[in-house]
Amino acid sequence: MSRMAPILPHVVIVGGGFAGLWAARALRRAPVRITLVDRGNHHLFQPLLYQVATAGLSAPDIAAPLRQILRRQHNVVVQMATVSRVHADAREIELDHADGPRRLRYDYLLLASGAGHAYFGHDEWAAHAPGLKTLDDALDLRRKLLLAFERAEAATDPDDRDAWLSFAIIGGGPTGVELAGTLAEIARHTLGGEFRNIDPARARVRLIEAGPRVLSSFPEDLSDKARLQLEKLGVEVQTGAAVDEITGEGFRRDGTFVRARTIVWAAGVSASPLGRCLDAPLDRAGRVRVRPDLSVPGHPEVFVAGDLAAIDRADGRPVPGVAPAAKQMGRHVARMIRARIRGQPGEGAPFRYRDFGNLATIGRMAAVVDLGAWRFSGMLAWWFWLVAHLFFLIGFRNRSVVLLNWSVAYWTHQRAARIILGGDDRSDTQ
Amino acid sequence: MSRMAPILPHVVIVGGGFAGLWAARALRRAPVRITLVDRGNHHLFQPLLYQVATAGLSAPDIAAPLRQILRRQHNVVVQMATVSRVHADAREIELDHADGPRRLRYDYLLLASGAGHAYFGHDEWAAHAPGLKTLDDALDLRRKLLLAFERAEAATDPDDRDAWLSFAIIGGGPTGVELAGTLAEIARHTLGGEFRNIDPARARVRLIEAGPRVLSSFPEDLSDKARLQLEKLGVEVQTGAAVDEITGEGFRRDGTFVRARTIVWAAGVSASPLGRCLDAPLDRAGRVRVRPDLSVPGHPEVFVAGDLAAIDRADGRPVPGVAPAAKQMGRHVARMIRARIRGQPGEGAPFRYRDFGNLATIGRMAAVVDLGAWRFSGMLAWWFWLVAHLFFLIGFRNRSVVLLNWSVAYWTHQRAARIILGGDDRSDTQ
Repeated sequence: MSRMAPILPHVVIVGGGFAGLWAARALRRAPVRITLVDRGNHHLFQPLLYQVATAGLSAPDIAAPLRQILRRQHNVVVQMATVSRVHADAREIELDHADGPRRLRYDYLLLASGAGHAYFGHDEWAAHAPGLKTLDDALDLRRKLLLAFERAEAATDPDDRDAWLSFAIIGGGPTGVELAGTLAEIARHTLGGEFRNIDPARARVRLIEAGPRVLSSFPEDLSDKARLQLEKLGVEVQTGAAVDEITGEGFRRDGTFVRARTIVWAAGVSASPLGRCLDAPLDRAGRVRVRPDLSVPGHPEVFVAGDLAAIDRADGRPVPGVAPAAKQMGRHVARMIRARIRGQPGEGAPFRYRDFGNLATIGRMAAVVDLGAWRFSGMLAWWFWLVAHLFFLIGFRNRSVVLLNWSVAYWTHQRAARIILGGDDRSDTQ
Repeated sequence: MSRMAPILPHVVIVGGGFAGLWAARALRRAPVRITLVDRGNHHLFQPLLYQVATAGLSAPDIAAPLRQILRRQHNVVVQMATVSRVHADAREIELDHADGPRRLRYDYLLLASGAGHAYFGHDEWAAHAPGLKTLDDALDLRRKLLLAFERAEAATDPDDRDAWLSFAIIGGGPTGVELAGTLAEIARHTLGGEFRNIDPARARVRLIEAGPRVLSSFPEDLSDKARLQLEKLGVEVQTGAAVDEITGEGFRRDGTFVRARTIVWAAGVSASPLGRCLDAPLDRAGRVRVRPDLSVPGHPEVFVAGDLAAIDRADGRPVPGVAPAAKQMGRHVARMIRARIRGQPGEGAPFRYRDFGNLATIGRMAAVVDLGAWRFSGMLAWWFWLVAHLFFLIGFRNRSVVLLNWSVAYWTHQRAARIILGGDDRSDTQ
């Protein structure tokens, strides 16, 4: 499978997200052959995924082909395939290739296959309240959101119309807050004047959080600021009770049923099922309880990083499932593998998460930033968030296109990607 | 369905393509209420669709929501719905709305629902050789093309690998030529260095034309130039015989079967089935033989424009199915309707197609331009094509993003949108 000398140790990385990709890059000068396996062909800049779902950006703006990113790193082979199992004792992973299963032997394994949605035992909700993890999720959600306004415009019965103009986002974390704020903005500004039977500004956007406050990972004062900024945008923030039913017509909460034809799930994640193959301890979300050096108990040659890894900081708080943590873990695993190859015995150095702060955007000119000592919100926070995200976005081209789309979106209130794709809109004969 | 005074005559336009949209705009000051019905929510700049299929542009770059384009034109109502029938005697059209069928009465009707693919009685070929008419077609084709290289990279059997690296474009018109040229370029340049088991430059791209030459709508010398430029890019141009079989494994032509796992259909179009509802004469492609003023025989209040209309020029040659012709027809129909409303009796002025010339691009720095007296090809033609298309592309934002993507693509040989979406690549747990 490779042009490289077969005597070199073989490092297999599962997942081309932040953890996997940063680990591969950090091994570029190491005496190893690397195989990076991902189900898709691209690395996704997940922090901006909600922008694709809300039609602000198009899918390729926030993704780049893994082969392109790694083209000059000659010790890497990229394989587009699904990993179905890990056989840790045989040091092999099982790949579902289009032409059947295959096995791949490794000397070192990094599992960084991330997380999916968790419906807390209510998988039947998935059909009515899709989540947002992949580009396909984002495009499905975009179609759902845009079609809701079309259905409302076409509706003849007022109740029907209101049900189509009623949106609910379940989960008050960063993704839920971003979606709710942007959706309210679209209804208030972007779609203004485009419809003849409805006033999109009358759309109701509810943000439902089971806990006492939104953005619970932030200090309380910033949560309050975020809530105020959301309400200023027209979002109805409802905290303190979870939903106990979701159907195609709406959701039940606190014993009352609320009609809402468009519901988005941003409440829970569950780790990739591959973690279960390792017969290692898992936490409630299915994440692997790794050792301090990110290796798996009983398998020093197997590492877990990113959203699939469960590890605590020195102060006992868990390392958050955010991009910077994933990148740091990926780089740490690369260090550990280099040390093992150099013949360093026993367990490696413990992983230390360096927390550079916490950002969340809410909408046009609204965001919260927590840099520990330094906290702020509103316009300044929004600019800080914008610059930080552009800076971290991979590739010149994406950055400039994203910046262009955003500046146009900002000044015109328009959104570039308001194109309904897929579903029944195949317009070949219209 | 409308805020406008119901006494005004009601103009229904079916199709938001060049003909329908330009007709609606030309009626912006006319004393009418307009309903524009389209199956999709967007106007598509079809001349650049092949760029979306070949990952040079992303879908929203070449499309804009009809509601956004027409937001300031207050005599228009946009409806997103499928038109299932026309009842010309009752002056009604039948709409398939999400919540059931509806009827819409009109005083004047413009049918501009365009064309789809024609497989010349071999509809079973559609599964193996998809065509390119809508954004969804383009995204499907993009996935098919990019996955072919992934499958080749993963292939273990050499014959299998070659079959995945063998591409065939059926049809040597502008779309076929654009696709073949761009695909050869991608294989030669864009993907260079990204794969470890295959050399993408070894991919075979065949362009199959049944007639004696490619770009038959151009003068013979430009067809020859186009062929030479294609061959320089590495395309194998094969003219003079049609395919007589297409399967998932390849195609048969001249009695020999050629293995090719990726086949694209660019050979034939058939007009929208709505034309058949008019009990008017149709041509072989199902287009409506309209009267000189673009109205339908027996129904002076019904007009047909764009790819659905069959009409000849003064010299007897047919008006081509290109964007400029569709725009001119749309504007002409608007003039006819205004004249009728002013009480002008009988048949209106005949439509005269003003031919501004004929362009086709072949690849990087390769194109042919026919401006009648003035013909040229190569680099100058390519720049002429680029400027012309950017100029006609709707909307500031699209233009600038497209220009940006192209300049980056040009200098780096990279293509912005090389992201495989849909299908099996849902990477939520990887």
